[in-house]
Amino acid sequence: MSASESSPGTSGSAPFRVGLLGHGTVGGAFSALLAERADEIERFNGQRPVISGVLTRTQGDFAEILAGADLVVEVIGGIEPAREYLLAAMRAGRDVVTANKQLLSQHGEELFETAREQGVRLRFEAAVAGAVPVVRVLEESLAATPIDSVHGIVNGTTNYILSEMAHGSTYAQALAEAQRRGFAEADPSDDVSGRDAAAKMAILARLAFGTPVHLDDVRYEGIEHLHVDDLEYARELGLGLKLIGTAERRSGGLSVRVYPTFLYAGHPLASVSGPFNAVTLESGTITEITLSGPGAGGPGTASAVLGDVVSVMTGGARPPAPPLPLRLVEDVESAFYLHLDVADRPGVLAAVTQVLGEQGVSIKSVVQRGLGEHARLVMVTHPVLESRLRAAMQQAAEFAFVRATPRMIRVIEEEFL
Amino acid sequence: MSASESSPGTSGSAPFRVGLLGHGTVGGAFSALLAERADEIERFNGQRPVISGVLTRTQGDFAEILAGADLVVEVIGGIEPAREYLLAAMRAGRDVVTANKQLLSQHGEELFETAREQGVRLRFEAAVAGAVPVVRVLEESLAATPIDSVHGIVNGTTNYILSEMAHGSTYAQALAEAQRRGFAEADPSDDVSGRDAAAKMAILARLAFGTPVHLDDVRYEGIEHLHVDDLEYARELGLGLKLIGTAERRSGGLSVRVYPTFLYAGHPLASVSGPFNAVTLESGTITEITLSGPGAGGPGTASAVLGDVVSVMTGGARPPAPPLPLRLVEDVESAFYLHLDVADRPGVLAAVTQVLGEQGVSIKSVVQRGLGEHARLVMVTHPVLESRLRAAMQQAAEFAFVRATPRMIRVIEEEFL
Repeated sequence: MSASESSPGTSGSAPFRVGLLGHGTVGGAFSALLAERADEIERFNGQRPVISGVLTRTQGDFAEILAGADLVVEVIGGIEPAREYLLAAMRAGRDVVTANKQLLSQHGEELFETAREQGVRLRFEAAVAGAVPVVRVLEESLAATPIDSVHGIVNGTTNYILSEMAHGSTYAQALAEAQRRGFAEADPSDDVSGRDAAAKMAILARLAFGTPVHLDDVRYEGIEHLHVDDLEYARELGLGLKLIGTAERRSGGLSVRVYPTFLYAGHPLASVSGPFNAVTLESGTITEITLSGPGAGGPGTASAVLGDVVSVMTGGARPPAPPLPLRLVEDVESAFYLHLDVADRPGVLAAVTQVLGEQGVSIKSVVQRGLGEHARLVMVTHPVLESRLRAAMQQAAEFAFVRATPRMIRVIEEEFL
Repeated sequence: MSASESSPGTSGSAPFRVGLLGHGTVGGAFSALLAERADEIERFNGQRPVISGVLTRTQGDFAEILAGADLVVEVIGGIEPAREYLLAAMRAGRDVVTANKQLLSQHGEELFETAREQGVRLRFEAAVAGAVPVVRVLEESLAATPIDSVHGIVNGTTNYILSEMAHGSTYAQALAEAQRRGFAEADPSDDVSGRDAAAKMAILARLAFGTPVHLDDVRYEGIEHLHVDDLEYARELGLGLKLIGTAERRSGGLSVRVYPTFLYAGHPLASVSGPFNAVTLESGTITEITLSGPGAGGPGTASAVLGDVVSVMTGGARPPAPPLPLRLVEDVESAFYLHLDVADRPGVLAAVTQVLGEQGVSIKSVVQRGLGEHARLVMVTHPVLESRLRAAMQQAAEFAFVRATPRMIRVIEEEFL
């Protein structure tokens, strides 16, 4: 098959008309970047991209913009009217590009289904990891490779805060600094709660495993309750602490989750610091590939959106494939770090290890440190089902000598090499 | 534009016939992977890939294989007959996929020109960084982004050896261990001389900057002459030592080079260890993206080749664009680490710094260490044109108190954030 059959003419051909919905930070940066790169894109693709219409809250008419566009870019954000516009554009036979993670993680199947029925392309590189091209790599390069797991740092705000905390800041100090530097919003709850990362992992899981995953299917915890001393213990144990999103095959199903997680120093995600994003794809065939770079933000996101437009112009993307059924697994095994504040008296360690033992939790290492009246008991377990660990910790929390709610953080220990 | 216009039928359509030239390690792994993944690829693309013919040294007829193939995969390696077969396949209107870095770095323009004339696709993901999809990302995701520089660890053998040396092995020990573990060939000269990395950087530079770059245009040094004490000094200075390939815009032209290079600990390539590859792409728009993973090797390479086949099936790749003229710059600025074995006597440091000063070389830091009769003088310079530095070192080498040929290693110092 020769590419020239479907190649647009290399001179004098009509421009490729892009209808733009939304003109905020991302939309503005996208317009500017498109104008800057139009010559180069025309040189490669034989067709020049132009913005044929812009819809804002106060300007433009959607029906007119749609009628005059070959492709529609949605950077409004939120659920409505973004959903309605994208569905209408696809039903009118238009390819669409969106940066909207809320929409994709909550109404993804409706969008994928519509794209499939209409035979149009639905591109969303910018919705996951900003300029890091993980969507493209999952869809295209790895079509040849079955994915076993995806691990990602997909929220730059929390990664920045954890990097600051690793250097001794408290959570409150680190958050304030992130806000001052523009890495966190005034209301950071969507980021620090893990919800933003959960939405992105739902989208990545859909892509990597081909099965519908809704935001509500993703278990997540945020970083608001982490203590500086957890990070200190991590350093002592040679571990880093990151907010890790995971999507992986487990027990014949799929587990998708986002948790603060300890990583050994050699893990490819352990060295990712500051407001960066990174995603590691594991597969039996290729062992592991990691992609990293700046997270979401005006120029990076605009560049990802324009990359999607170019991939549609080149004819590179396909309408989505029908979904595969894969059971979602909620209760999965992992190793845990446990932190208990206890009274410093004889028999405490024995009592705690007994309830752990009764639930089949096997201890890998223990550090008990006296602090006058109190003691800190820090343990790392061997991998165990989360439900068993939670049951044991619930029992342990009832001991009179336990002075505060026990803390638990997941640990990724395995070496890659 | 709707994708369904060019979509192959989703059932009962003819298979997509792949003619395979070469059936060694990569060819064998490719055949096995294609058979394993055929169902999944058919599900996504509506067409099933099959191997329609195999050419080995003793079996098969090229003309017959060509006649019965939609696409030709070349994994023979070397210049001839690979070149002749690929040219013939493209002239017959076939898309081609190759993993052949020698051929691309020495006859790339002939191949690109033929692909352009014939309007066929020429794919070569496996020729650069094994399973790490840097070719795809450069071609597709970053079409929207002008690249300023590409820095890469593109040879797994040397990266493994340097990782071992960083832990105290001598060069000879590390090489022997690499050979024992299958990371280095019996004759490792192509790897350790930097020539393999230079070929890959020629290909990456062509892609990133659109200008013809021949292997002969790439300046390179290998790792054979590195000393364990250079690595020790690196550790003391908080630097890592890697074989770094660079392609970057400099003085309105393009510089492409491969050198052992010191990196500060926070550089995205500093933490890449063992037989891994990684490439960092820098651009004003996206700051920087890094891709890392296992280097060349049977399964990873086969997966990259199959990814290329799938991208042709999906219609995603384009014939190459015409080359852009860009002057190749040979003499570029960088910071240097200098190591001199000198007699331990007064006036030595003054004499050395004077010849450096005369050539405009400015010293950033100096460590002089007495060792009885001898002393070691280790300096890091500010960025300086290589020609100036070399002139100064030539003068310094003539001093009677200099006991051995001065050693110099480039340094990347700048922080990314």
